[in-house]
Amino acid sequence: MKKGILLVISGPSGSGKGTVIKRLMEKNDSFSYSISATTRQPREGEVHGVNYYFISREEFESRIDAGMMLEHAEYCGNYYGTPKKEVYENLDAGRNVILEIDVQGAMQIKKKCPDAVLLMITPPDFRTLENRLRGRGDNVAEEVILNRLNAARFELEQLSAYDYIVVNGTGEIDAAADEIAGIVAAEQHRVDRAGEFIANFFNA
Amino acid sequence: MKKGILLVISGPSGSGKGTVIKRLMEKNDSFSYSISATTRQPREGEVHGVNYYFISREEFESRIDAGMMLEHAEYCGNYYGTPKKEVYENLDAGRNVILEIDVQGAMQIKKKCPDAVLLMITPPDFRTLENRLRGRGDNVAEEVILNRLNAARFELEQLSAYDYIVVNGTGEIDAAADEIAGIVAAEQHRVDRAGEFIANFFNA
Repeated sequence: MKKGILLVISGPSGSGKGTVIKRLMEKNDSFSYSISATTRQPREGEVHGVNYYFISREEFESRIDAGMMLEHAEYCGNYYGTPKKEVYENLDAGRNVILEIDVQGAMQIKKKCPDAVLLMITPPDFRTLENRLRGRGDNVAEEVILNRLNAARFELEQLSAYDYIVVNGTGEIDAAADEIAGIVAAEQHRVDRAGEFIANFFNA
Repeated sequence: MKKGILLVISGPSGSGKGTVIKRLMEKNDSFSYSISATTRQPREGEVHGVNYYFISREEFESRIDAGMMLEHAEYCGNYYGTPKKEVYENLDAGRNVILEIDVQGAMQIKKKCPDAVLLMITPPDFRTLENRLRGRGDNVAEEVILNRLNAARFELEQLSAYDYIVVNGTGEIDAAADEIAGIVAAEQHRVDRAGEFIANFFNA
């Protein structure tokens, strides 16, 4: 049984990464989405074990101490993180696991799992990103938009730490999803993942 | 215009790499096959500029001295090598270039062109390779078969210097060709090939 691939997907607000990941999973049943744990309160409609694992601050910290989190970070006073056990179980069962996390989380993963694949979804250019963020029509204050643009710029400047870039052009969600599936398929052919094949090659 | 990818394909005798490459090129018109130069005499039916560039020893050595060969080696008193100019012209025009060369040549390419992709085509296991080499029915002497098996073993032991492995299972030529096309498509998404995109991203 060949191990699955741990695929870290990042992308700034406005890159459309959520939509691309959804399409990718609809089209390919070899992918599992890793559900994060968080200490923040569930919003209306959010379900424990579907959107997040909602756990207490005390519980979260004890899991960090026990080495049960693959990565974690604190935003606005709440913890967010990736539970390790489910990820490893899926990988061992040959399933590819998607972690949708930001650049800082991605760097933590890269350190702990050097064979993870880091992929960033971007818009075609920064102007398109700005148009998307301004055009959402939800009447957002200029200050919020500028904050999102700055955050996006910061994320995109970290691109060189990633392995792959997939451009999500307007109306090209299918193409982006297929490109990601193709990248993961190609990664399964990398020699550094072929240890078992090589070990058995001369003894079959 | 995105540069093409330099794809080095190796594989032992019996791996079926010639057949796979032929199928790959039939199915994908973005690939060019790099024609080698050699000092050996043309065999019956071989055409200059199709099978090889047949040139004199003097001419070959002057091209080596002039830095016109991307890699070269001598076998049984004849030079074989890859002319540099055509390869670079194709890559600059956005075409992917296939070099079908052995492990030693591949190592020379890797040094001169660190962004080349090195791929080895293998049979599913060594026993299958042996069956293929023995089963060709051309009444080859046992000594020749043992030589080929030893050469194959040597090639396969260098696998760790390669980037990708594609297994050419019996009757799976199409699958192997598609896997190679997918690997090259994925490579075009690698961040270290995205310099131009990144440079233009914030200025579009």
